[in-house]
Amino acid sequence: MPVNLSAPDPAALHPIAGVCIGVTEAGVRKANRKDLTVFLLDEGTKVAGVFTKNRFCAAPVQICREHLANGSDIRAMVINTGNANAGTGSDGLARANATCDGLARELGIKATQILPFSTGVIMEPLPVERIVAGLPAAIAAATPDNWGNAASGIMTTDTIPKAFSTQVQISGKTVSVTGISKGAGMIRPNMATMLSFVATDADIAPALLKDLVRDLADQSFNRVTIDGDTSTNDSFVLMATGKAGNAEITSMDSADGKLLKAALLDVAQKLSQAIVRDGEGATKFITIRVDGGKTGEECRQVAYAIAHSPLVKTAFFASDPNLGRILAAVGYAGIEDLEQGGIDLYLDEVHVAKQGGRNPEYREEDGQRVMKQSEITVRVSLGRGTASDTVWTCDLSHEYVTINADYRS
Amino acid sequence: MPVNLSAPDPAALHPIAGVCIGVTEAGVRKANRKDLTVFLLDEGTKVAGVFTKNRFCAAPVQICREHLANGSDIRAMVINTGNANAGTGSDGLARANATCDGLARELGIKATQILPFSTGVIMEPLPVERIVAGLPAAIAAATPDNWGNAASGIMTTDTIPKAFSTQVQISGKTVSVTGISKGAGMIRPNMATMLSFVATDADIAPALLKDLVRDLADQSFNRVTIDGDTSTNDSFVLMATGKAGNAEITSMDSADGKLLKAALLDVAQKLSQAIVRDGEGATKFITIRVDGGKTGEECRQVAYAIAHSPLVKTAFFASDPNLGRILAAVGYAGIEDLEQGGIDLYLDEVHVAKQGGRNPEYREEDGQRVMKQSEITVRVSLGRGTASDTVWTCDLSHEYVTINADYRS
Repeated sequence: MPVNLSAPDPAALHPIAGVCIGVTEAGVRKANRKDLTVFLLDEGTKVAGVFTKNRFCAAPVQICREHLANGSDIRAMVINTGNANAGTGSDGLARANATCDGLARELGIKATQILPFSTGVIMEPLPVERIVAGLPAAIAAATPDNWGNAASGIMTTDTIPKAFSTQVQISGKTVSVTGISKGAGMIRPNMATMLSFVATDADIAPALLKDLVRDLADQSFNRVTIDGDTSTNDSFVLMATGKAGNAEITSMDSADGKLLKAALLDVAQKLSQAIVRDGEGATKFITIRVDGGKTGEECRQVAYAIAHSPLVKTAFFASDPNLGRILAAVGYAGIEDLEQGGIDLYLDEVHVAKQGGRNPEYREEDGQRVMKQSEITVRVSLGRGTASDTVWTCDLSHEYVTINADYRS
Repeated sequence: MPVNLSAPDPAALHPIAGVCIGVTEAGVRKANRKDLTVFLLDEGTKVAGVFTKNRFCAAPVQICREHLANGSDIRAMVINTGNANAGTGSDGLARANATCDGLARELGIKATQILPFSTGVIMEPLPVERIVAGLPAAIAAATPDNWGNAASGIMTTDTIPKAFSTQVQISGKTVSVTGISKGAGMIRPNMATMLSFVATDADIAPALLKDLVRDLADQSFNRVTIDGDTSTNDSFVLMATGKAGNAEITSMDSADGKLLKAALLDVAQKLSQAIVRDGEGATKFITIRVDGGKTGEECRQVAYAIAHSPLVKTAFFASDPNLGRILAAVGYAGIEDLEQGGIDLYLDEVHVAKQGGRNPEYREEDGQRVMKQSEITVRVSLGRGTASDTVWTCDLSHEYVTINADYRS
């Protein structure tokens, strides 16, 4: 059961002019499952992506990097679930390339104009023949209003599809932004997360896209964590088709640029938070805000120490205000000169710890009340500066262990 | 159920001349529980300790550091369970000092000659009056052959007491080494672990003790992890009473020094591994050996990434050879220039991954066979140098979640 997250209404997902999406069942790992998705992009669509920093990055991630670096006009993407094509060596690269070759033949474009994505089990050979065999059906099914199906088509252990959409007026034109993402374990994105695709029909200068996608990732996917495990396949792709008819945006600091960025960030943050809300076994959605730091980096260090602590996460699962566990995590986060006496801890508005010790006015029942909620904000004030940062995470439940002890069976 | 670990036979624990131990029930948190232990040390006993690097280190840890730094002759230690006296600010320091004062009065020594230790729940006020009231009974019960009771007296969520003992002949004299430890959660020691006390009657130059205790910790307690949570109260104390009658050891590199160090390390490693074997919810004991690194530090980085991955740990719990999860952890361990193609992975003697991809000769049933064992060695070869290091850990089971969701109730 995801935390305060329902399935998207397909009718509320704005199509993006210039983007068609097709989904089919290719039997990659299991039968009767939508496991193959293709994105067909009109000529002139600008594409940028950020990918996992895992040194065991998957074969398709390596190929995406190459194809994007080539500066080729990207015209299609192909996404399979059921198999991550990671930890597969040179054979994995050959299979990912064969997938691109297959789609290139079908579409009459070059293989270098295609971005491949895979998600699923690691270190198993990709059944490329089944994927290639499924491509014609996926292409035939492609329509502009297929974002809802695509959100379902890229799911693995996700319990619910994730898609968000918004519109914004830019230079007198309606610009749409629509995106999808999937989780739901091995989630501690490092540059991006396990598959998210966001498209807009805005017209935007190609030079801006690369920085923009990094900025967006840093404020969304790079601030969520479920289990601290950085995936081999994390990919976040931004597409801009330029069909909205707005005057081309040439700076993200312009009025139009800021409007578009806010719309994109809104969708990206909702998509990344949706991954946490649907995190494996999640029963609570937790916002961890650390302020009063000397640098944003040390605020993140503290926030991630809390977000990754199995003891903190099981206490949230139990709704037990065993809040000393949070202080312990703050203490071992790695800030060498941190002074206990400067630290305050809040659970929503409840002031739990004051100057490093229990707040004399703190009452257990107040902590208990907040801990029972499905949405909780933990705020740690380091008392040593003005920097701050925020990370989103979930609790650690029996269900997480069940899911991951059974994942391959 | 601890993994291949049984309760110690009290008769097999050699008393250490110069050390008397008393245990009693003080009702610190719950009734009818041995929760207060005192160590009485003969004059001339040399004591050294290493303590947690957690910046939220507990009040007793701060006082231990002070009392040891003073160079005072340590003559007694007092250990309570049920309450960690951590995250308690200046009031916590006052309570820890009051405990020392109480014991100093009973024994007619100075409070600075006492080391206090606490373990249990964080951020609750220490019930110092109950502890002080229990001291006379603990002192009255003190005998040299009480190591077995002490091992029980310092337990919290441990399911089994942990004590090891050995003897070694040094310069014609029999030297004894006996130690105890406790776990069982919040275990990723950083300089030492959650309470371990090792004593020897060896005669050893005081100047050697401080380096020795660090060396021992680095090769034992600092190489185990259960959940990656570094406790606020980690303490490892080494006592040398000098009663064995051996010629004073003046260098750990001498023949006698090496003999003693090997005996101490044997006991310290068994004690630290016992903590993992009795880790919260542990069903498997896992040795992670990383070799072929450029530095020991990067080997440890990789070993800890594997040891802390919830996905790896749940796969071990399930006996599922989902070994791509190990490769993913190697990949995100933080070695920026790591090359996939150099990496090999073994599960005991089974060669799973070769040059970064699945070993063509690897058969799932071989991986399955090893995964079903209660003791498993994971070996990762980085193929970029000659350094190596080893870390010991356990799996992540439903029982871990149950224990930590219920710990305070």
